[in-house]
Amino acid sequence: MDFKEKGLLFVLSGPSGVGKGTVCRALRERGTDLQYSISVTTRKPRAGEQDGVHYFFKSKEEFQAMIANHQLLEWAEYVGNFYGTPLQYVQDTLDEGKDVLLEIEVQGALQVKQNFPEGIFIFLVPPSLGELKKRITNRGTESLKLIENRLNAARDEIEMMKHYDYVIENDQVDCACDRIEAVVVAEHCQQARIIEKYKRLTEVD
Amino acid sequence: MDFKEKGLLFVLSGPSGVGKGTVCRALRERGTDLQYSISVTTRKPRAGEQDGVHYFFKSKEEFQAMIANHQLLEWAEYVGNFYGTPLQYVQDTLDEGKDVLLEIEVQGALQVKQNFPEGIFIFLVPPSLGELKKRITNRGTESLKLIENRLNAARDEIEMMKHYDYVIENDQVDCACDRIEAVVVAEHCQQARIIEKYKRLTEVD
Repeated sequence: MDFKEKGLLFVLSGPSGVGKGTVCRALRERGTDLQYSISVTTRKPRAGEQDGVHYFFKSKEEFQAMIANHQLLEWAEYVGNFYGTPLQYVQDTLDEGKDVLLEIEVQGALQVKQNFPEGIFIFLVPPSLGELKKRITNRGTESLKLIENRLNAARDEIEMMKHYDYVIENDQVDCACDRIEAVVVAEHCQQARIIEKYKRLTEVD
Repeated sequence: MDFKEKGLLFVLSGPSGVGKGTVCRALRERGTDLQYSISVTTRKPRAGEQDGVHYFFKSKEEFQAMIANHQLLEWAEYVGNFYGTPLQYVQDTLDEGKDVLLEIEVQGALQVKQNFPEGIFIFLVPPSLGELKKRITNRGTESLKLIENRLNAARDEIEMMKHYDYVIENDQVDCACDRIEAVVVAEHCQQARIIEKYKRLTEVD
């Protein structure tokens, strides 16, 4: 009889420069009850960096083996070094009943979605919608070029956000954090998850 | 160019005696940003009750006409009087961009779901799961009859909760309110709703 509820994987992503890292750090400082994924990397440790705390440090050969053995939820190469998210660490943390937050670029998030579709995907967007409204409604006072640029960016964002479950505007870091916390609570109250718990309980005999 | 976002209809329901009314009053006292639906009734106003504030008071003929004209989201008869939820009032409030909370019995909630499937349906359950776990795992110390009763109740609840989007345990009124508020915030961040807003904006020209 194991009644332990598994944790949920939340993936926070969005266009570059939107402030994913800042929001993530703010959630950490608040003490939000989320575990943060630790990346695997082939780059050398910097002063003070500890294996298994800041990163899992691996050789290129070890990293290639992890790719070959499907042990990474996603991976990418930056300036000659490899970075990835270890499936085992995420899985173990979820099995302990803890929620995991993974902050990641859009391409990485799409890889995670393929490998872990049961994750909950959150797209962070710039605080643009309200601004854009004002610009369009007062169009005389704004450069048409600026509006056009922002409209094109918004169209690109729509294409990206289609792959996500939630879209959160990063108007203020604190508000964005509040919304992410609300998503975490609401997801745990989803009917299908609760029925799952009830069923395991009532079918025991 | 109308950028106004419509409000959402939240329906709070659950087995009788679970504390729907208490939770609803607590949300009101907190000042949660939700409008409360006003029922139509054929019963006579009591001292101090105002038409359009506590209820919309109608004659039986008027009420029957509302049923015939599909002007009620749901209705029921209790001890010779009719009670119902007026579609027009709910629709007008949503059109103003305000969220509406409707507290209602399970049968009424199922009627609302048929007439307004875009509503968000929340099922409140007694704080039973944790209790039940303890009873089952310490079965020597509990009457088997009690456990069996509670298991049967849980099975009935599963059948009901299938029709809902969220299930919230009413372990403490304050916690239940927190979870309902989280659901309200999270629902407004749903990808499909945000894309809708973006599309209306980017297609304007």
